[in-house]
Amino acid sequence: MSAEDRAVGVGLIGLGTIGTGVVKVLQRNADVIEQRLGFPLRLVRVADLDTETDRGVDLGGARFDSDSQGLIEDPAVDIVVELIGGYDAARRLILASIDARKHVVTANKALLALHGAEIFGKASAQGVDVAFEASVGGGIPILRSVREGLAANHIEALYGILNGTTNYVLTEMERTGEDFEVVLKRAQELGFAEADPTFDVEGVDAAHKLTLLAGMSFGAQLTHEQVHTEGIRGLLPVDFEAAEEFGYRIKLLGIAKLRDGRVEARVHPTLVPRSSLLASVDGAMNAVAVVGDAVGKTLFYGAGAGDLPTASAVVADLMEIAREIRRGQAGRVAPLSYVPDHLRTKPLVPLSELHARCYLVFTARDAPGVLAQIAGLLGEHGISIESVIQKGRGAASGSVPVVVLTHPAREGAVRRALEQVDALPEVTAATRLVRIEEDL
Amino acid sequence: MSAEDRAVGVGLIGLGTIGTGVVKVLQRNADVIEQRLGFPLRLVRVADLDTETDRGVDLGGARFDSDSQGLIEDPAVDIVVELIGGYDAARRLILASIDARKHVVTANKALLALHGAEIFGKASAQGVDVAFEASVGGGIPILRSVREGLAANHIEALYGILNGTTNYVLTEMERTGEDFEVVLKRAQELGFAEADPTFDVEGVDAAHKLTLLAGMSFGAQLTHEQVHTEGIRGLLPVDFEAAEEFGYRIKLLGIAKLRDGRVEARVHPTLVPRSSLLASVDGAMNAVAVVGDAVGKTLFYGAGAGDLPTASAVVADLMEIAREIRRGQAGRVAPLSYVPDHLRTKPLVPLSELHARCYLVFTARDAPGVLAQIAGLLGEHGISIESVIQKGRGAASGSVPVVVLTHPAREGAVRRALEQVDALPEVTAATRLVRIEEDL
Repeated sequence: MSAEDRAVGVGLIGLGTIGTGVVKVLQRNADVIEQRLGFPLRLVRVADLDTETDRGVDLGGARFDSDSQGLIEDPAVDIVVELIGGYDAARRLILASIDARKHVVTANKALLALHGAEIFGKASAQGVDVAFEASVGGGIPILRSVREGLAANHIEALYGILNGTTNYVLTEMERTGEDFEVVLKRAQELGFAEADPTFDVEGVDAAHKLTLLAGMSFGAQLTHEQVHTEGIRGLLPVDFEAAEEFGYRIKLLGIAKLRDGRVEARVHPTLVPRSSLLASVDGAMNAVAVVGDAVGKTLFYGAGAGDLPTASAVVADLMEIAREIRRGQAGRVAPLSYVPDHLRTKPLVPLSELHARCYLVFTARDAPGVLAQIAGLLGEHGISIESVIQKGRGAASGSVPVVVLTHPAREGAVRRALEQVDALPEVTAATRLVRIEEDL
Repeated sequence: MSAEDRAVGVGLIGLGTIGTGVVKVLQRNADVIEQRLGFPLRLVRVADLDTETDRGVDLGGARFDSDSQGLIEDPAVDIVVELIGGYDAARRLILASIDARKHVVTANKALLALHGAEIFGKASAQGVDVAFEASVGGGIPILRSVREGLAANHIEALYGILNGTTNYVLTEMERTGEDFEVVLKRAQELGFAEADPTFDVEGVDAAHKLTLLAGMSFGAQLTHEQVHTEGIRGLLPVDFEAAEEFGYRIKLLGIAKLRDGRVEARVHPTLVPRSSLLASVDGAMNAVAVVGDAVGKTLFYGAGAGDLPTASAVVADLMEIAREIRRGQAGRVAPLSYVPDHLRTKPLVPLSELHARCYLVFTARDAPGVLAQIAGLLGEHGISIESVIQKGRGAASGSVPVVVLTHPAREGAVRRALEQVDALPEVTAATRLVRIEEDL
């Protein structure tokens, strides 16, 4: 059989930015794709509700219309690529594809974080593959690395910069000293943030990705609601200055650890040591540090979003599935890394049990004895102060920010202390807390 | 069939540091290995010429003797792990395993860089797999990432810190200001360098790894003799100081690029910008930056050597092959990423055509007009100077080092200029050249 006769047919649903990127990569890189597979991938059909807009790509011989169900049922389509995003329609299309015994490639982390169990269960029953490398870390082959490259390890911890928009905003806030809203607006103008950036800046997108990554790393049936999630809206320019003085940078990290069979999973702004590799990950780039008991510390870095980087991951998945199709196989590796029988609901570590150094910003009237009162309350809860920066005299308000780094402390104790601090009459605004992570 | 009945049998030849690490990982992590595979890996037999030394591991029920041929022929052994290193015996054992239709896992980059074509060709003919993730980057899943995760890309460039010993020595030379020989001796005492460190410090080990990585990335039939290789012996403490003043760090990089169908492949000390991620890779750690046309810049970081990190990669290979054995399959992915028909001998870019900024150290008598003479000769060859540092007055010798950074220049022109400079009567030692790499 000639290489051409062995071509595997691809149907693409959703011709937005990433879909267009997939078309470009399939076309421009058709040579290496075939040289590596031994046969070509053929884009045979594209479906999108909008068939009018000029995306600046030539679809070659692929049929293009709005009939996604027709695409799914088209016998020339071996693999369906779902790139419409969102929940309902995407879920319906993926399940319909699986019903039609078509393999599926998707970048839809939100959907998988919510409906992964249903989708993977049905795919397994139907003997088809669902691949989703592009859903976490964009072009970084992080899911493959966790699932196969590091498969011999007990994975102990994950630390990820998982959202390019927030990392871009944080990098710019640090560089310019500007407020969050100013930087966000510029990021939107430059295309680094969506018109509605809620999912990104609130940490929800990162939580979806962490859910997938941690579930796969620990063999845990996690849901994204179990991930404690804080966004970056509360950060102020003073935080970046203070972090720098203390030798840190601020990153929105997804952190997951497995300790004594319990899972800790959280997304929040984090102070990371300037000397760590994660601190050097700037702009819209992503990186994930994975700690395994055999391999030790590893790190995977690359573009976490963008049309071509994401398409790089989508097409890698297409190639992997295409090989299996030509070998008459499916289900080579469990999609969530552990065979389904060994995926377990694992207990969570409550946030109150976290043990971490903290960066605290108190806002208090500049009156004698206030710092002593605050320090006293912290001390009563067993929290000891490592360093203090008092940022000049307050403005007209008469309030001054006092920045404190603590020694490692239980979050529960910190929370109780802060409640009492914030009840002091001299304290004029809620104390802000950013956690510090040293071991990365 | 029970999970136990589906166990895949492993035979291990070579119970040295890494072999012992493999035994440890197979034992300690037997639970996750089985939870991810759905069946266990079973160490059934171990062979080593030395059956007396206590390695501090319990081999469980595995038979242990010096009979490697018996191990290969043992029907209970499905996969042979070759960890004796070196050329002749390792090659013989691997070929014998393939003859016996056993799959092979090896960490032997030197052997594969020399005899890869023979070994992969024979394995393909016999329908068995040869896996070698541990041969490059230790525990970092870099070969998998290039072969599968980034398979949709034209790979444009690779920049790797591929040898832990040299990276440790360079990091220590920078930190302490000590001479190469002093630091190397300490590295040997601490176990970071071998008793005979020649392969490491001369760059040969890195060249072997780059040969595999570049061949796989570009679909090129490369041999390690085609990699221009320089080691780190010539570096002096002054180089680290000057590099720092200019905003660089010195790393032994393996660099490979594909340009207009021609391959550039070289290993040499390199000045890398302090702001780059590669500059932050310290001590015995390794990292590889891979640039693909779709994905852009990526980086993979982790422990490049050591018993457990290397074992992490070996056991990942065992798991991948074990899955295939249980599915009655082999040859899923071409070991060198391109199907054999598409592996090509590609022309090399001669070193003289390199276009790079250079760090030059001239040693000249401290006489008036010498710098002008040198600058004049550089200018005659079209090489313009970007910055100069003159390191104080010379010692008793009356010679001073003059450190120059050039603008980008052709290496051929630089070489010709340096020949003339070194012929000047005032120049008292051969000029030293370290290349600068900016785009990482």
